[in-house]
Amino acid sequence: MSAKPSVVIDLKFSREAMDRALASAFQDREVIDLGNPDHADKDISEATYAILWKPGPTLFQKATSLQVLFSGGAGVDHVLTLPGLPNLPIVRFVDRSLTDRMSEWVVLNCLYHLRRMPQYLKQQREKLWHEIAMQPEAREVTVGVMGLGVLGLDAVRKLKVMGFNVIGWSRRKKEIEGIETFDEDHIDDFLARTDMLVGLLPLTNETRGLYDSSLFAKLKQGGALGKPVFLNAGRGGSQVETDVIAALEKGVLGAASLDVFEKEPLLIDSPLWTMENVVVTPHAAAESDVRALFAHVEAQIARFEAGKPLEHVVDRASGY
Amino acid sequence: MSAKPSVVIDLKFSREAMDRALASAFQDREVIDLGNPDHADKDISEATYAILWKPGPTLFQKATSLQVLFSGGAGVDHVLTLPGLPNLPIVRFVDRSLTDRMSEWVVLNCLYHLRRMPQYLKQQREKLWHEIAMQPEAREVTVGVMGLGVLGLDAVRKLKVMGFNVIGWSRRKKEIEGIETFDEDHIDDFLARTDMLVGLLPLTNETRGLYDSSLFAKLKQGGALGKPVFLNAGRGGSQVETDVIAALEKGVLGAASLDVFEKEPLLIDSPLWTMENVVVTPHAAAESDVRALFAHVEAQIARFEAGKPLEHVVDRASGY
Ligand SMILES: NC(=O)c1ccc[n+]([C@@H]2O[C@H](COP(=O)([O-])OP(=O)(O)OC[C@H]3O[C@@H](n4cnc5c(N)ncnc54)[C@H](OP(=O)(O)O)[C@@H]3O)[C@@H](O)[C@H]2O)c1
Ligand SMILES: NC(=O)c1ccc[n+]([C@@H]2O[C@H](COP(=O)([O-])OP(=O)(O)OC[C@H]3O[C@@H](n4cnc5c(N)ncnc54)[C@H](OP(=O)(O)O)[C@@H]3O)[C@@H](O)[C@H]2O)c1
Repeated sequence: MSAKPSVVIDLKFSREAMDRALASAFQDREVIDLGNPDHADKDISEATYAILWKPGPTLFQKATSLQVLFSGGAGVDHVLTLPGLPNLPIVRFVDRSLTDRMSEWVVLNCLYHLRRMPQYLKQQREKLWHEIAMQPEAREVTVGVMGLGVLGLDAVRKLKVMGFNVIGWSRRKKEIEGIETFDEDHIDDFLARTDMLVGLLPLTNETRGLYDSSLFAKLKQGGALGKPVFLNAGRGGSQVETDVIAALEKGVLGAASLDVFEKEPLLIDSPLWTMENVVVTPHAAAESDVRALFAHVEAQIARFEAGKPLEHVVDRASGY
Repeated sequence: MSAKPSVVIDLKFSREAMDRALASAFQDREVIDLGNPDHADKDISEATYAILWKPGPTLFQKATSLQVLFSGGAGVDHVLTLPGLPNLPIVRFVDRSLTDRMSEWVVLNCLYHLRRMPQYLKQQREKLWHEIAMQPEAREVTVGVMGLGVLGLDAVRKLKVMGFNVIGWSRRKKEIEGIETFDEDHIDDFLARTDMLVGLLPLTNETRGLYDSSLFAKLKQGGALGKPVFLNAGRGGSQVETDVIAALEKGVLGAASLDVFEKEPLLIDSPLWTMENVVVTPHAAAESDVRALFAHVEAQIARFEAGKPLEHVVDRASGY
């Protein structure tokens, strides 16, 4: 029996998580884990599969037999800009757990602003017992989700169950029961209806800098919450942070929840840290679980070796 | 045509909300609104229906022709202890909007603790970019809901959609798809499984002081969140607040969200205001909307006058 094709791993995840996950993954084949000091000198020229996230600069020079690349994250903007990237299929990370966690973040943050938590927590610090008068319920508020992919589709369904009026926007028009959808060309109609904007877009040439002053100015003003709210858990590169800050200062936006930033970690002198009504989380909306990542890669390798088409392959032309 | 039976109203809601709601309610019959100074001297001896919340002491002496009492709130503990309460059917307030709002509060607060928001907001104040390691997803956490009535049933369904493992407890055993349920006698089994306890019980002789040290000690320790979390949006009289505080201080409880308190407004010197991991909201989880209340009363009066049975009638023996 000849050995099965081997896997090279170049992930910048915690050592402990990697060791725990590798203890039960890829039992049937050789794994070269470049983050493991004992493997540093191993020959990777025969490796067939690479699992990567911010890999070292020589990976593609040395691993000359690769057939499939697996992204360690759901977004592939980091992968597509790697120097020397070979022309091979790139499979991105799609996972039930990651999707569920993202929807937790989205629903939590939409409810947080709907239910005036910034003000209630402030009142609590002041020991003030006071019911806030302007308290719409979810169905009076329209959440507009930008990006109706794996993550957006799960989020809109759960937001709808929580009672929100939900609309969605994507490049190509989608049919989703109970949810009004808009395509690329109808973004202005979509924005004019949106009280809470949720960004779940990949970072591409088209989405870079999309969330800027001119976009915020098109959001619905004077809805049940008074002012629109901006949430982003896609990629920081899609937002113009000085514009987000200006919109909050001028009252074009009433509040925001941001998990992603132009530069991460968010710079210490960013006003976002301390602005009222702004929630900052450290790119933690939906972490990649290494065990789930390896299970996903194993499943795709099984398909590939059985001659079936790979799933979740990135379309390089559109950049996601 | 003889005039339709009249309504007397004794509610301590805001004047503005009352006037707005009365402008379009009970168009077909006389309304005597005791909160309106112009009505203060009106004769109420002929009134057939009373809508009340913390009524004046002479209401039942003066309104001697009443046939149905309508509670202005979902809970009727205040009504059942009124001096001179006549032996008439009491209809409590049940409303789609109130139910939805309560589920917003419940799901928001469960996600808030699941996703470590107290810690993330603290880190934000310290401008600290740090992903918290112990971050289970909803399905790893069991939410135990006490009270599977109108509110509990809606909450368990929505918690389930958000991914939580959900179990429920009520006096009489319920059958709910996808949710394991326990009856009165099996409370200890229920508590031993619960990571997050959600209180949605009415205040009765049986539920007074139920959430005490001995109950908290029976909750599951060492679950995915480490320590159990206590949420209460039923009635404050069901919790022993000194025990809640002691359990938080000793680490028997890891966190809490409370909308109701033994004394409301919460006393200014209560440690709950400033305890880490505690959310205090001012009995605002699901306010009674006056317009919805009047629509509900109109619907029940229509049933009553058509000879159909009233709905949501309180069982005085069980106290809810
Ligand atoms: N914060 C975090 O922790 C975290 C975790 C995971 C992922 N993410 C980010 O979330 C992003 C989305 O993930 P996903 O799995 O949902 O991706 P996906 O399945 O590829 O979906 C992407 C969606 O965006 C739409 N889209 C892309 N470019 C567009 C454009 N120019 N105009 C309009 N719509 C456009 C796509 O439209 P079509 O449907 O027409 O193709 C699709 O609906 C990832 O790329 C990643 O950057 C963040
Ligand atoms: N914080 C707020 O803003 C707010 C707003 C509205 C209501 N509330 C409170 O929420 C409470 C619940 O409302 P609801 O409409 O859901 O009431 P409900 O429909 O009457 O349901 C009450 C539930 O509690 C259970 N229960 C009662 N006594 C029990 C006992 N001794 N042991 C075990 N289970 C017991 C009942 O069991 P069975 O099913 O066996 O009868 C039922 O499942 C109200 O009474 C009110 O006090 C608070």
